Amino acid sequence: MASPAYDDLAARFARLSRVNDAAAMLGWDMAAVMPEGGAEARSNQLATLRVIAHGLQIDPAVGDLLAKAESKSGLDAWQQANLAEMRHGYLRAVAVPADLVEALSIASARCEMTWRGARKASDFARVLPQAEALLALSRERAAALATALNLSPYDALLDGYEPGGRVADIDPVFADLAAFLPGFIAEARERTVERGAGIRPKGPFPIATQKALAERLMARIGFDFAHGRLDTSAHPFCGGVPDDVRITTRYNESEFVSALMGVLHETGHALYEQGLPATWRDQPVGQARGMSVHESQSLLMEMQACRSAEFLGFLAPQLRETYGDDPAFDADNLRRLYVRVEPGFIRVDADEATYPAHIILRYRLERAMIAGELTFADLPAAWNEGMLALLGLTPQNDAEGCLQDIHWYGGDFGYFPTYTLGAMTAAQLFAAARAAVPSLMTEIARGAFAPLVQWLRGNVHELASSLSTRALLERATGQALSVAPFKAHLKARYLA
Amino acid sequence: MASPAYDDLAARFARLSRVNDAAAMLGWDMAAVMPEGGAEARSNQLATLRVIAHGLQIDPAVGDLLAKAESKSGLDAWQQANLAEMRHGYLRAVAVPADLVEALSIASARCEMTWRGARKASDFARVLPQAEALLALSRERAAALATALNLSPYDALLDGYEPGGRVADIDPVFADLAAFLPGFIAEARERTVERGAGIRPKGPFPIATQKALAERLMARIGFDFAHGRLDTSAHPFCGGVPDDVRITTRYNESEFVSALMGVLHETGHALYEQGLPATWRDQPVGQARGMSVHESQSLLMEMQACRSAEFLGFLAPQLRETYGDDPAFDADNLRRLYVRVEPGFIRVDADEATYPAHIILRYRLERAMIAGELTFADLPAAWNEGMLALLGLTPQNDAEGCLQDIHWYGGDFGYFPTYTLGAMTAAQLFAAARAAVPSLMTEIARGAFAPLVQWLRGNVHELASSLSTRALLERATGQALSVAPFKAHLKARYLA
Repeated sequence: MASPAYDDLAARFARLSRVNDAAAMLGWDMAAVMPEGGAEARSNQLATLRVIAHGLQIDPAVGDLLAKAESKSGLDAWQQANLAEMRHGYLRAVAVPADLVEALSIASARCEMTWRGARKASDFARVLPQAEALLALSRERAAALATALNLSPYDALLDGYEPGGRVADIDPVFADLAAFLPGFIAEARERTVERGAGIRPKGPFPIATQKALAERLMARIGFDFAHGRLDTSAHPFCGGVPDDVRITTRYNESEFVSALMGVLHETGHALYEQGLPATWRDQPVGQARGMSVHESQSLLMEMQACRSAEFLGFLAPQLRETYGDDPAFDADNLRRLYVRVEPGFIRVDADEATYPAHIILRYRLERAMIAGELTFADLPAAWNEGMLALLGLTPQNDAEGCLQDIHWYGGDFGYFPTYTLGAMTAAQLFAAARAAVPSLMTEIARGAFAPLVQWLRGNVHELASSLSTRALLERATGQALSVAPFKAHLKARYLA
Repeated sequence: MASPAYDDLAARFARLSRVNDAAAMLGWDMAAVMPEGGAEARSNQLATLRVIAHGLQIDPAVGDLLAKAESKSGLDAWQQANLAEMRHGYLRAVAVPADLVEALSIASARCEMTWRGARKASDFARVLPQAEALLALSRERAAALATALNLSPYDALLDGYEPGGRVADIDPVFADLAAFLPGFIAEARERTVERGAGIRPKGPFPIATQKALAERLMARIGFDFAHGRLDTSAHPFCGGVPDDVRITTRYNESEFVSALMGVLHETGHALYEQGLPATWRDQPVGQARGMSVHESQSLLMEMQACRSAEFLGFLAPQLRETYGDDPAFDADNLRRLYVRVEPGFIRVDADEATYPAHIILRYRLERAMIAGELTFADLPAAWNEGMLALLGLTPQNDAEGCLQDIHWYGGDFGYFPTYTLGAMTAAQLFAAARAAVPSLMTEIARGAFAPLVQWLRGNVHELASSLSTRALLERATGQALSVAPFKAHLKARYLA
């Protein structure tokens, strides 16, 4: 039986969750439908909700209630996990002094704004002073969090995106990958050349038709349209709240594959949100586990399931039915288009095989910056050196180099590794699902996703934050995070 | 120069305004785009924002700061008006005990839910107990507000929708109208029959085409699409915030007039919001004056400007261009369709001439209910008696009688008179605008709305809540609210 202190906490965290949910919906609106003139009013609304949420988080009464609730026994496992999540959130919230929170919010808004222009002009010097100031504040924040959480500064930041994520666990798997990738990429490049370019489908592909097909596939996979929507935005994302998941994509009339794969990716995120346990909706333990598990769900759907030869076999006739006959819609040709490997400068355009190299580069650099071993002034040189080592390329300018991503210029340090942790987790979970459900791929070949989604529900979605990422992965796959399934997947797909 | 107390209040009311703005955007989303499964999460979000807003309003510090700020001199006229609006809002917020606020919120949600079924089944008995309970709580609330504001209970409720609105001012104008209407309606009916039915335009009218025309006309009138959108919802409304106004309509492929007139109506509301002074955006004095002025802006645009012979002359070729040639698009024929008068049971379907009779009936009944002179049990009989006296009709059942409107079953008493006050205000303002701008109608005849909008900006929109409704009207038209311009308008339009 829960204590009055626990119940009081649950009510407070429910309120916090609703304020955050309101902000999430407004964030979707801002990206998907808001007219440009609404920006200032919207950022005022969001800033006010953030201040209110922060006030709820750092209320000293929460600290007293946590101590009281922790001193009582009688909580069941989920309640205990919920209480631990509350404590974790509280520790993080009170660790950073209010004036530092405000200084960071102003500095990151300013730096991000300047970065937009600097990237367009490929003018690193323009954003350098603000980036340095933002890094200094971010290091202060990391130090404050590190003290409160008894972690290293970088781990303390990483922990904000990936609770429980630690450099000590990431370093060996990234080192393994970094050793594997150059040779693998070279081999995959060769296979790409041998297979030939493939026939590109001929457009135009009307947007309304693309959207209708995307929605049919979403429904087929299991997206619940009574609890979500598909809309359009400049940068595709999965937003909203679990009972009302808003995913977006962007369309190009001359090429339908990227919008479609984007939708399948976001559908993976959306299924996770829609599959979280309804009874824990407003509580910390009811939220998605962290960024790497979240990314694993989108990559599992996009990369593991929907780029498989089996799915492409299912997709080909759908494409012919939707867009008319075109030799490009042959399943083998589609596969040829999907397994091209080609190193490039830009992370967001990278294929599955070269993507981890982009991430490992950023992970190394941001660790050095937070440790005080690398300054922003030295970043361009360090970036280009890393690109040459990892991908054999030298950017012509900083726009296709260290200016390309928003993260650092918005104050997000510690986020990047979750992309590749997600890719590895996706491969490991998918291998476990295939082992547990022998018919999985033949089901996918006929467009039947229920067995896969059912496995994900029981092994990921419905567990929410009741287990740590590591415990969740061990429960689902029998082992801690390993590079092996990801390597096996890459070899099977790109060297075949 | 403002005092520290005033500045503190301004910051607090800005925060309140942003919370309310966030709720307004979520309200638009709920009506326009939210999937049905999002309803429960959304109502939780909105309830939390309401609780937070109420907490900001009744904070005892606000009372202290108001007393301090009121004791200082040195405020300019707008600041004084702002302080008075703050005081007014504070008095209303603290007047009602928290437990009564909660009881009302629960009772009105329940009653409204039951009413939906009761109306569908035309089963008044089903909703009677909950309606009686809600009325009892509403009367308690009215009494509490009456004491705090030194007003009669009904005036205290009316004042929530129409600040400064008083029965003593409404009674004489409504009595005048009630005496005028029966004879006028009979005469207008005769003219309708003499003129003949007119030719109905032949559909179908594709929704995308209707929307494109509506947006062209909105832009023509002056709607700023950088600060707003047009969308679709079951019940048309004007929502959002002044910097991001969201209007909605609903389309019918077989008939385009109601969607179009709905858009023009909401555009009138939207221009008011978009025209409020940006410098006072987050303050009470910067908000729209009240419901009657708001409704005057929509009715002025829809009824006065856009149903005029001049506008129909401009519209006719637009319709031919949009939908193809049809004899129904002759300007005279359009006019014939637009000036039909026909008493009916349903308020929302009523024409401009019979609408005030519906309102006067509801005003009389709700005053009697709040005064304790009429119970819900006696409402059906009183309703039917009033319909017979005012419109010569007897409803066949309560669905087309006292169950038709949501207001009372949602706890809204004191709202109804603002519809007809708005119609009268619209006529009086439009007459003043025509007198001030002699070319007004010839400009409208060529689709030029700038002179009208400019007059409205200076005489209504930019004044926001800096003047009382009465002072605003006297400044703009040289006199207090009068029935004469409305009567003159009705005669000119329907008896010609």
